[in-house]
Amino acid sequence: MQNFYLVDPAGGVNFGINMEQADLERFYEFLRFPSVSTDSSLRSSSIDCCRWVADLLTEHGFEVSIADTPGYPAVIGQWGKKPGAPTVMVYGHYDVQPAEPLDLWETPPFEPVERGGRIYARGATDNKGQILAHMLGMGRWLKHAGELPVNVVFLVEGEEEVGSPNLPRVLQERGADLACDVAVVSDTGMVGPGIPTLTYGLRGIACLEVVVTGPKGDLHSGIFGGAIANPATVLCRLLGQLHDQDGRVTVPGFYEGVRTIEAWEKEAWERLPVGDDEILEWTGVPELHGEKGHGSLARIWARPTLEINGVGGGYQGEGTKTIIPSKAFAKISCRLVPRQHHREVTAKVKAFIESLAPVGVKVEVRELHGGEPYLLDPRGKWGRAAQASLKECFGGEPALICEGGSVPIVQEFKEILGVDTLLLGLALPDANLHAPNENFPLENLEKGMELSAGLLRHIASAG
Amino acid sequence: MQNFYLVDPAGGVNFGINMEQADLERFYEFLRFPSVSTDSSLRSSSIDCCRWVADLLTEHGFEVSIADTPGYPAVIGQWGKKPGAPTVMVYGHYDVQPAEPLDLWETPPFEPVERGGRIYARGATDNKGQILAHMLGMGRWLKHAGELPVNVVFLVEGEEEVGSPNLPRVLQERGADLACDVAVVSDTGMVGPGIPTLTYGLRGIACLEVVVTGPKGDLHSGIFGGAIANPATVLCRLLGQLHDQDGRVTVPGFYEGVRTIEAWEKEAWERLPVGDDEILEWTGVPELHGEKGHGSLARIWARPTLEINGVGGGYQGEGTKTIIPSKAFAKISCRLVPRQHHREVTAKVKAFIESLAPVGVKVEVRELHGGEPYLLDPRGKWGRAAQASLKECFGGEPALICEGGSVPIVQEFKEILGVDTLLLGLALPDANLHAPNENFPLENLEKGMELSAGLLRHIASAG
Repeated sequence: MQNFYLVDPAGGVNFGINMEQADLERFYEFLRFPSVSTDSSLRSSSIDCCRWVADLLTEHGFEVSIADTPGYPAVIGQWGKKPGAPTVMVYGHYDVQPAEPLDLWETPPFEPVERGGRIYARGATDNKGQILAHMLGMGRWLKHAGELPVNVVFLVEGEEEVGSPNLPRVLQERGADLACDVAVVSDTGMVGPGIPTLTYGLRGIACLEVVVTGPKGDLHSGIFGGAIANPATVLCRLLGQLHDQDGRVTVPGFYEGVRTIEAWEKEAWERLPVGDDEILEWTGVPELHGEKGHGSLARIWARPTLEINGVGGGYQGEGTKTIIPSKAFAKISCRLVPRQHHREVTAKVKAFIESLAPVGVKVEVRELHGGEPYLLDPRGKWGRAAQASLKECFGGEPALICEGGSVPIVQEFKEILGVDTLLLGLALPDANLHAPNENFPLENLEKGMELSAGLLRHIASAG
Repeated sequence: MQNFYLVDPAGGVNFGINMEQADLERFYEFLRFPSVSTDSSLRSSSIDCCRWVADLLTEHGFEVSIADTPGYPAVIGQWGKKPGAPTVMVYGHYDVQPAEPLDLWETPPFEPVERGGRIYARGATDNKGQILAHMLGMGRWLKHAGELPVNVVFLVEGEEEVGSPNLPRVLQERGADLACDVAVVSDTGMVGPGIPTLTYGLRGIACLEVVVTGPKGDLHSGIFGGAIANPATVLCRLLGQLHDQDGRVTVPGFYEGVRTIEAWEKEAWERLPVGDDEILEWTGVPELHGEKGHGSLARIWARPTLEINGVGGGYQGEGTKTIIPSKAFAKISCRLVPRQHHREVTAKVKAFIESLAPVGVKVEVRELHGGEPYLLDPRGKWGRAAQASLKECFGGEPALICEGGSVPIVQEFKEILGVDTLLLGLALPDANLHAPNENFPLENLEKGMELSAGLLRHIASAG
């Protein structure tokens, strides 16, 4: 096993923090817990993992308490001895995705190994490697210097992979301990190896289900076909009217309030090393396709969508079964951009589909979950601090990106704690998140430690 | 157990045929064979049942041979000692549908019992009761009179419930033995108890499958949603364009050649005791719906349809999974009316769907099976003979109906043997065909015997 040393950049701002053999061993220990939150048979492993996180933070000088929940506990680790200075909350999670399918792993998912400078294990990137970089980076500084330039509170939960059902309650009940000026989360992506990346926008989401019900049971399509409305046909006809031929959503008012993409964003995106070629390669589609008048990154990052996630009804087996299905349904999710609101969009989609419903069937539109979009102005003080620390650590101009998905906790930090979140992702595009052979480069653990320490300094100056 | 006697109508044309206790016992014997052609573990029962049919026909004076097939054998029973007279082929099948679900049967499916004048057992109506009525009716006459007024050949197969895969081969190989002037099949329905019914039209069928393929795997709808075409959305959009708002199929040329419903048909249908109220009750739909400008019976019997029999793709479980599915598909079947041809319709539907395919996905339209529609002019000589025998037997004006489904063997009799088929159904609407508690009224067995004997006499005069 190699020994890694952080190079102290000119100026010595990192107080000579070295990544040592012990840090790597800590990473291995962390990865060996099969802390799969969806698997109740592994509950004791998750609890052991939680305790390990608590011990690590205690050892590095944080005042630790456990927030029990009806599910898995969260660890809160505080250092608040800098009155008047800003407080930074660093969020991460110790739970991981299930490792299945196991036969596609080259080495066992909970026996971490290093190959080609990367550590392979379930949770290596999502999220153990990333949160460990913060714990070790800030922890080392605190041990070395005896104090931090700002106040820090860690929140490391164990239910992120099951949708953080108890996090809002923890945020509410432990609001005094978690009070902060800005949150930091490393659970997003970098656009490429060595390219510092700040994610400043996330799309929100609005999910619905449409169920069309006709006859009381499946019917023979010969005996009754022609005289009654076919629920599958009606469903397709309804859903087929939700987009126009330019790929725009036809729901009245759908685009109401959607913000215009600003010039600085377009410029920032044009500089990125990702674009149509990469999307074609990753997806394997014959040709890209989307809303007319926008490029691919804008379509994913800054334009709302309405997607059918699933559709079903009637006979789906081999060959033919000539029935009129009793019912047909579809799952729909809309991705939302800033200034759209999920409840409003849900209501508009529901009303539009209901307005299209023909006679002869019952059309039900059920509202499922939703979440608001998020936008941080990267030109604001926290955004500038984040960019400065990224640049200092990685040495290049940070990529400013959005993500098309949603990170619900960010919205909860905004709503419950009233703070913005700096999304400083360290996940590479080929990290195999949620897939077999998940991995994390040792370089990113090293850089992450450096970034974490540097970020505190820049936040101190900005605050 | 009761003893039944056929009343000899004034004029004594039926030679005093009596339905005796022995006939009922024969019906029970026939029903006790679990001759389920889909269930290979019951093969020996089917073979025993086939032999039983052969013995019955032999006993009644028919010259019997077995047509072996790669599946189940067919029984051919000939009486051809009337040179110059027409030959009638009577078709039926000794195989039955599976009896499952067994727990919904009030009494065991292969232990026939009489309740309220009906015999309950799997196959009671479909088709054992109906073909037995012909075998006993004609057989009794032959035994009694020593000869029949026309030549008769029975064809009783054992694979109807699995689509008669070997029947065309039997028709071809045994063409000389099966040569006839007209075919008679009792495997369709009566519009109500005691209402004599001639089915003179059947719809054909053209089946297709549409598969829309996009990305190489399911994708995260946040990460990629907006930049690539969604196969489920494309599928719904394609299928949603196959009908206009008046319920007409929009495929170019779809209605080409469709015959106009004639005045005598409309009059015949208006007299029927079935209509919108019955269809509403049977289907349980809130309101009927179909092609504008036609009533329900016309929509089912004389207008072509395009139905989606099944649709699937992406996530169909509980709640939400925010993916863009890799593929989505639909099963389609068109019901065709006379002067449409299934290969032409299939080609038109395929071409139209392909012409609508957008960029960004692969759209495949696969041709599945098809069958031609069928029409017998009930005013022709065989049609008149059938009506005369129905009227004589049941005492009322026969109902002239079509059926919306397909009976592929009828088309094969037309194509291979070159003959029309008289569809003289004895199945009641509540016979529970293909369902638990299948039943057949003893009255229909009795009337069927009488009808069968009378039919030969009317065919003799017509021929």
